[in-house]
Amino acid sequence: MENAKERLAQAVKEAEEIVYSYLPAEEGHQKTIFEAMNYSVKAGGKRLRPILMREVYRLFGGQGKEIEPLMAAIEMIHTSSLIHDDLPCMDNDEYRRGKKTTWVAYGYDMAVLAGDALLIYAIETAAKAFAMTPDAAKVGRCIQILSEKTGIYGMIGGQTVDVELTNQPIPKDKLDFIYRLKTGALLEASMVIGAVMAGASKAECGTVERMAAAIGLAFQIQDDILDVTSSQEVLGKPVLSDEKNNKTTYVTLEGIEKSKHDVKQLSETAVDILYSLPGKNEFLEELIEMLVSREK
Amino acid sequence: MENAKERLAQAVKEAEEIVYSYLPAEEGHQKTIFEAMNYSVKAGGKRLRPILMREVYRLFGGQGKEIEPLMAAIEMIHTSSLIHDDLPCMDNDEYRRGKKTTWVAYGYDMAVLAGDALLIYAIETAAKAFAMTPDAAKVGRCIQILSEKTGIYGMIGGQTVDVELTNQPIPKDKLDFIYRLKTGALLEASMVIGAVMAGASKAECGTVERMAAAIGLAFQIQDDILDVTSSQEVLGKPVLSDEKNNKTTYVTLEGIEKSKHDVKQLSETAVDILYSLPGKNEFLEELIEMLVSREK
Repeated sequence: MENAKERLAQAVKEAEEIVYSYLPAEEGHQKTIFEAMNYSVKAGGKRLRPILMREVYRLFGGQGKEIEPLMAAIEMIHTSSLIHDDLPCMDNDEYRRGKKTTWVAYGYDMAVLAGDALLIYAIETAAKAFAMTPDAAKVGRCIQILSEKTGIYGMIGGQTVDVELTNQPIPKDKLDFIYRLKTGALLEASMVIGAVMAGASKAECGTVERMAAAIGLAFQIQDDILDVTSSQEVLGKPVLSDEKNNKTTYVTLEGIEKSKHDVKQLSETAVDILYSLPGKNEFLEELIEMLVSREK
Repeated sequence: MENAKERLAQAVKEAEEIVYSYLPAEEGHQKTIFEAMNYSVKAGGKRLRPILMREVYRLFGGQGKEIEPLMAAIEMIHTSSLIHDDLPCMDNDEYRRGKKTTWVAYGYDMAVLAGDALLIYAIETAAKAFAMTPDAAKVGRCIQILSEKTGIYGMIGGQTVDVELTNQPIPKDKLDFIYRLKTGALLEASMVIGAVMAGASKAECGTVERMAAAIGLAFQIQDDILDVTSSQEVLGKPVLSDEKNNKTTYVTLEGIEKSKHDVKQLSETAVDILYSLPGKNEFLEELIEMLVSREK
């Protein structure tokens, strides 16, 4: 496991180098928005989405640089959603990962624009892959997946239901819907795009999508668990925030033991699916294991 | 001219039918966001961007339906920017086109999400063109143009500079920059995408981009003129808002006469460029003329 943690640290470093290389230079009339974007992307994070994308790409034999703009794109979209989530009209959070949130650092208006900017700059960045492969249809398919999984039938769709049910008890079916879309959809996009770019078959992409869905749900439940069992020092953000905000979570609905059990089971399901695929990627297995035991 | 107005009314009707056909059905857990999106898109507007896109497409001999998802996409992006522009942290506008703005009708949080949703749903919609033509590279190029002209080096870039200079005198070079990006970029995208989809050459696309830039600037200056010379009844929004907000405009910098003169000259430039292109599209000429004489 020590070895796996080192490999993860290395993967995070590499993912950050790739993502940062696609960020705008902080110059010109729009300097402030460039700074706000870069501040937000560089504020840290697990970089799970670009890492998973690349590892699935490698699982199916992908070796080129063509995956890199898509890695950057998915992290930009994730960051965009965090910026808008933190706004006063949404979660009203002043700190994230121990740093001031974008609206606190750059103002409310600039944070709205920085979120918009990262969302569409992600597509602009993804489209750079067209110049890196002769297979335009493949890149087109990835942009289609990226926008679908980000949009109203994906992440944003989940967010809207979540926002609408703030301060209300959420029934299990709606919570499942929110988790599947709000966290799951973007993880699915990450992994399926890795597969598509490596030339995986349609059936294989479907299998990857199921694996990603299991990982996404495990990841979200683990988030709920940590909000109850962790500390601000470890997590880098206030704990017990769900309780404070009267939020229904997997833990409040199912209890902490069942939640822990389900995380474990979901990660086993994901690993089983991984084994059913033709390639082999030990680090990807380790990654899935680490998602269960993660403490932040 | 009467005839031209009728043709325009017909073009608006057709553009709206096309755009509306790509809007989400108002059903499911995310019903509210679908309603907010549709409310915003259906709140009216000149539909200038999709109309110009189609007329340029026709100018270069385009006849297929493949242009339609891109027409819908550009109108969604335009609407997305209006929703966020109207937010309390931005222009704080309660009415647009005589109707409540999205944040007034659906709440601050839902308006942020509706803007995000339309921005990325525009890409999802544009990507539907991949299934309508065998030429994936062509559609890829259009998505690239769409995201570039929308993003930080386009519309959103212009908006950020505009927002940052609120309540400050704006020097001419920055105002030019704002106008070129904030209004110009999306009109350029509309017209260049029309050309690309119809198979125009790179040189022709460059010429179309210059024509669109002239039209975009004329359009923006005309906006400034109408804010001084029109009435709320005609315009459907409060007039003298620039003065109220201490906004530097083309009119405050150059005076009303020079502004009117420049609109006329820019539209003549645009028509001259249009004549230099191989095809012929009388309605496109009329459209450009109408931009000068428009009263709202």
